Amino acid sequence: MSTQGPNEENPLHIPQGFRFASTTAGIKASGRADLALVEAPLGASAAAVFTKNRVVAAPVTVGRANLRRTKGRVRAVLVNAGNANCATGAQGLEASKTSCKALGGALEVAPEFVIPSSTGIIGVPFPTEKLVTALPALVAARASGETAVREFAKAIMTTDTQQKTASAEFAVGKKTVAVMGVAKGSGMIHPNLATMLVYVFTDIDASPVELQGALKQAVDQSFNCISVDGDTSTNDTVLLLASGASGVKHGQRGAEKAFAAALQEVCASLAEQIVRDGEGAQHLVRLHIEQAKNVTEARTIARSIANSPLVKTAWAGADPNWGRILSSVGKSGVAVDPAKINVHIGEQQVCKGGMAYPFDEQSAHAYLKQREYDIRVELGRGKTKLTFLTCDLTTEYVHINADYST
Amino acid sequence: MSTQGPNEENPLHIPQGFRFASTTAGIKASGRADLALVEAPLGASAAAVFTKNRVVAAPVTVGRANLRRTKGRVRAVLVNAGNANCATGAQGLEASKTSCKALGGALEVAPEFVIPSSTGIIGVPFPTEKLVTALPALVAARASGETAVREFAKAIMTTDTQQKTASAEFAVGKKTVAVMGVAKGSGMIHPNLATMLVYVFTDIDASPVELQGALKQAVDQSFNCISVDGDTSTNDTVLLLASGASGVKHGQRGAEKAFAAALQEVCASLAEQIVRDGEGAQHLVRLHIEQAKNVTEARTIARSIANSPLVKTAWAGADPNWGRILSSVGKSGVAVDPAKINVHIGEQQVCKGGMAYPFDEQSAHAYLKQREYDIRVELGRGKTKLTFLTCDLTTEYVHINADYST
Repeated sequence: MSTQGPNEENPLHIPQGFRFASTTAGIKASGRADLALVEAPLGASAAAVFTKNRVVAAPVTVGRANLRRTKGRVRAVLVNAGNANCATGAQGLEASKTSCKALGGALEVAPEFVIPSSTGIIGVPFPTEKLVTALPALVAARASGETAVREFAKAIMTTDTQQKTASAEFAVGKKTVAVMGVAKGSGMIHPNLATMLVYVFTDIDASPVELQGALKQAVDQSFNCISVDGDTSTNDTVLLLASGASGVKHGQRGAEKAFAAALQEVCASLAEQIVRDGEGAQHLVRLHIEQAKNVTEARTIARSIANSPLVKTAWAGADPNWGRILSSVGKSGVAVDPAKINVHIGEQQVCKGGMAYPFDEQSAHAYLKQREYDIRVELGRGKTKLTFLTCDLTTEYVHINADYST
Repeated sequence: MSTQGPNEENPLHIPQGFRFASTTAGIKASGRADLALVEAPLGASAAAVFTKNRVVAAPVTVGRANLRRTKGRVRAVLVNAGNANCATGAQGLEASKTSCKALGGALEVAPEFVIPSSTGIIGVPFPTEKLVTALPALVAARASGETAVREFAKAIMTTDTQQKTASAEFAVGKKTVAVMGVAKGSGMIHPNLATMLVYVFTDIDASPVELQGALKQAVDQSFNCISVDGDTSTNDTVLLLASGASGVKHGQRGAEKAFAAALQEVCASLAEQIVRDGEGAQHLVRLHIEQAKNVTEARTIARSIANSPLVKTAWAGADPNWGRILSSVGKSGVAVDPAKINVHIGEQQVCKGGMAYPFDEQSAHAYLKQREYDIRVELGRGKTKLTFLTCDLTTEYVHINADYST
């Protein structure tokens, strides 16, 4: 199996059975491409994970309902950037439904086979007409090559500084299955809300139920193991579509495991790209939580560390401040025994049994000046390990999010 | 009843039955006063609330045990700044016990009648000898006037820019009861850990059980309703001592209610002073959560808003960004109905039923530029109100906490 990130020169592994398009509808103030489409001409099975925020954007409500109605079959996904269509009430719901109907009409399919997605500013009425007007150009632009995929990835960006794609492939017998993901997200988004949108495409032949199981597991180990600023958007979506065009069935010998691994690789790569592109982030921190009793408590502790402003600002200053890490473990709510906790910065142990452990501060400081590094916390409670990705909190983050825009 | 903050010209209401002292033991690197004592020559009843962090400093462990052993009787409190005596293992516990024994010896009382308190750097062995050496000078300095109280307040400061005191008094019949509090805290403390320490003194005659009930209620409505950066220190302590010297019994007609009100006033004033002195804070935000089902959910939602980096940075920019507030309510875990949520910035409504409500952005921006202001969130779920105090997240906060110190 091979996985590729966005900046590698190797081409993407593009699954069969999908066409991609993008255009400029005038929704982004910048005048950049802001409307994107992926179509499965023969349809696709789908699975999705949506935000847990109680305040959800209209397209999340409509998308959820559409998936229920079609029992997990999807013909197209329509994504716009520049307006989140959130806190827009009845007008917003109508806008999302109208968008699905308009694209469904153009593709000659019922509107519920279209999944809408939006990212951008919150609380501003959705410019339905701009979107509908741009649809013919969008539909005409459908193509299956790598250029179309990369243009799709660009059109869904907001404050992202990098387009985010990853892909993997594996063979089952003489057939090849591709898994490719496209994502956007870089912390919550200026000037109002934020969003992580992730679309993963594959040509394996799988049912929505099979996909949901695989997606849940992959998301748990990737997007649920990252944090830029601890905020959860109203639009967060991870959508997995399977065209079946490879001819490899999910239930077939050797397919399920290889697919799970490929999906996991692609999601992990996209999750890492999102943290790397975190607003104002100068450091990518790989937080290894070890000797936990289970994944839940490991994740709780990782989040308590990763979302502590004191820990994050210490990282911004390359300060080997293990006391703040220890205190964040203590305030997590997990019944840890401080006397069993060890902390390591890279190869150096800095805290042993909850106490200071002699270390070379200068070399720890130099280590923490690197673009990315590892911090390891041992809890002495069990055998579970978890790796969590996060970043530092810099003055640049404050600038990005504090600068008044209107 | 009258309450006074630190900057008022009126004198403090100082309860009878206490003596205060401070000196320089050389624990703070700055060379400022760093050791403080309060003594109740005839003893005092006590109640305390300690940090919920699982990682606790040695003085918290020793103080808790001492209170248990004496069934809530205290003769003296010994506070040092400059070293938190946390993550110091057996040496730290020994240091705390030795300090209590030494002071107990000087005051001719068993060591368990002394409550130790520490604030400052974490993970550095405690300089017991410096403290013990300074004790004779400290004990000799005991005095009951306002100057001694203010010197006590200064000696316990770390990154605080202001000393923090508040007092109130009330009459029962012809007798007067005074309640006076001294606090330190301004967010978590550079270069390592942090701490909120609060000492409240009164001359009412009350049992430890009566005091504990009153203290719990006052803390819930004051220190549990503030947040600078969402972090919980390993040393946080609120201690209430009652000398009984006023001759007014807590059970006496009219005393209990008046005492609860005075205690609440003093705690609220100190809590506000702590937020006002928040590291790098430019704005004091009074967050009014209304129409909640109960206090627990109101506090959960207030904390979700107050600890959101996106909300806090918007406040730093005086940005009337109600979308981030709405999203923070949504991610709090409380089962809110977005369609019932209203948000008001000062007198202006900015969000109605979860949607944008037309408002004058320029005047909202100007309103948010004030040193302090009100934001009101209505949940449409019940009748409970809660006021929560917090502050913005500025580049200055990042500087204070990121600058590498060693």
